[in-house]
Amino acid sequence: MNIIYILDLIGTAAFAASGAWVGVRKQMDLFGVLVLGAVTAVGGGTLRDLLLGDIPPFSLKDETYIYIAIVVSLVVFANRVKFKTFEKPLLYFDAIGLGTFVVIGTTKALDFQLGLLGAVLMGVMTGTAGGVIRDLFANQVPLIFRREIYASACVAGGILLVALEAVGTGRPAAALLAAGTVITVRLLAIHYDWALPKS
Amino acid sequence: MNIIYILDLIGTAAFAASGAWVGVRKQMDLFGVLVLGAVTAVGGGTLRDLLLGDIPPFSLKDETYIYIAIVVSLVVFANRVKFKTFEKPLLYFDAIGLGTFVVIGTTKALDFQLGLLGAVLMGVMTGTAGGVIRDLFANQVPLIFRREIYASACVAGGILLVALEAVGTGRPAAALLAAGTVITVRLLAIHYDWALPKS
Amino acid sequence: MNIIYILDLIGTAAFAASGAWVGVRKQMDLFGVLVLGAVTAVGGGTLRDLLLGDIPPFSLKDETYIYIAIVVSLVVFANRVKFKTFEKPLLYFDAIGLGTFVVIGTTKALDFQLGLLGAVLMGVMTGTAGGVIRDLFANQVPLIFRREIYASACVAGGILLVALEAVGTGRPAAALLAAGTVITVRLLAIHYDWALPKS
Repeated sequence: MNIIYILDLIGTAAFAASGAWVGVRKQMDLFGVLVLGAVTAVGGGTLRDLLLGDIPPFSLKDETYIYIAIVVSLVVFANRVKFKTFEKPLLYFDAIGLGTFVVIGTTKALDFQLGLLGAVLMGVMTGTAGGVIRDLFANQVPLIFRREIYASACVAGGILLVALEAVGTGRPAAALLAAGTVITVRLLAIHYDWALPKS
Repeated sequence: MNIIYILDLIGTAAFAASGAWVGVRKQMDLFGVLVLGAVTAVGGGTLRDLLLGDIPPFSLKDETYIYIAIVVSLVVFANRVKFKTFEKPLLYFDAIGLGTFVVIGTTKALDFQLGLLGAVLMGVMTGTAGGVIRDLFANQVPLIFRREIYASACVAGGILLVALEAVGTGRPAAALLAAGTVITVRLLAIHYDWALPKS
Repeated sequence: MNIIYILDLIGTAAFAASGAWVGVRKQMDLFGVLVLGAVTAVGGGTLRDLLLGDIPPFSLKDETYIYIAIVVSLVVFANRVKFKTFEKPLLYFDAIGLGTFVVIGTTKALDFQLGLLGAVLMGVMTGTAGGVIRDLFANQVPLIFRREIYASACVAGGILLVALEAVGTGRPAAALLAAGTVITVRLLAIHYDWALPKS
């Protein structure tokens, strides 16, 4: 159990909670809430593994992820009446997960010999694709295509990681700086309500 | 031609009809109706095969499935004015397909050395993912996330199969009992209008 | 640099522009516009490669495609106020891309030993799946399921190519005739406002 794995599980729990909460707000039944929780938590990494050819994907190799997602989603469903008060603190855990997921995805893609652009894309996808699938299931335009600095924080972190490794920085330092960048940008964006230019 | 294969083809035809019928009701053109029929029929098993790494997926290895889906969808399209009367009987064939798909998916995942949770998930996915893609294409929140006992019947059957094999029951008996459970739960749910708790 | 590769890049640019333009009209932010452009451009071929087992997919092996898609999407976003005047000419480049994509997908599937139906499906998917994902992201029923001769032009081209190769026609001649068919049918459909029968 290293620190990355623990952060990965924390992120998985936070993403599952955000997915399950969308399911609750869309008035889905218990099964729908569980699926939204699980898909949000492991969807990004699973899609990444399909594209990298690492089959079966991480989420089917180590079932801890899906067990966590199911338990968290059940907790959200059971406490749905008073869950609204947890929305704000959840954003902080979500940011930790985002930074961790981007670093895991980007480094894995580099290890699979992808190019620099491909590695950044896989990092961004690991952090964001679960939420995109969640929004498709909830029949809404994915949130990250519309507002806030969320995917942009992932792009910044992914580019930084790839650039640091390209100039010879060791993996641990590069990963730490990249994850820190994603989390910092994301938290600043929440605090100052930053957004990208819109159409 | 064994009995599982015949049931599989019956389920494929029933799923294709339900998909094509959604396409008709959403006023799609002929191409849209064909795609909805085909995707509903083979989408779940194809996604399962992608995740298990059995490539090309069953639907591209044995083209019988897609030929059946196309022919059935054409028949639904040609008879769209009077198809409404077939909605009720279609539910029975759909239930047979559901039980068969769950058993095929769960046993295949076990044969591919997935864990118990993963095997149940693959069974449920084989039975339900085609309908989820159908609903995404029709721009509606997937039906199985909202009401009725449909996915839950799959979950029950998948868990039963995995449990029976874990205690040493032979594949044929376990498969038969699991498929029977899915079909029975599904038909009882239709008859008594059962549903899961909602958000 | 052969002629197919150049046509492929032209098609990629045209598809990216059409995707980015949907993102703009749906009032997405810059990130959303980039994703819609990229997914429309490479989504069909990427899904084909996943199903054929050619991993990583073409879009991650040769990053030229995604670089083009990003640059084109940026240009569309920057010129969004006056882009409307380019809608009509874009249709012609889109038709060239469509013909090229169908030929590339169908021949690749044949080279991967798929059956005749599977080869046609892979060709049609290469030409159309990017646009389907674009429409899912934009939260609308995919355009090609509703109106116009678009997918049908792909089906015609794919069937012609498979039939020509089956009777012994060489690859270059078969590819040229098939691509020409897709482009001609598509342009005639635009000019005469052809559509398939609707539900």
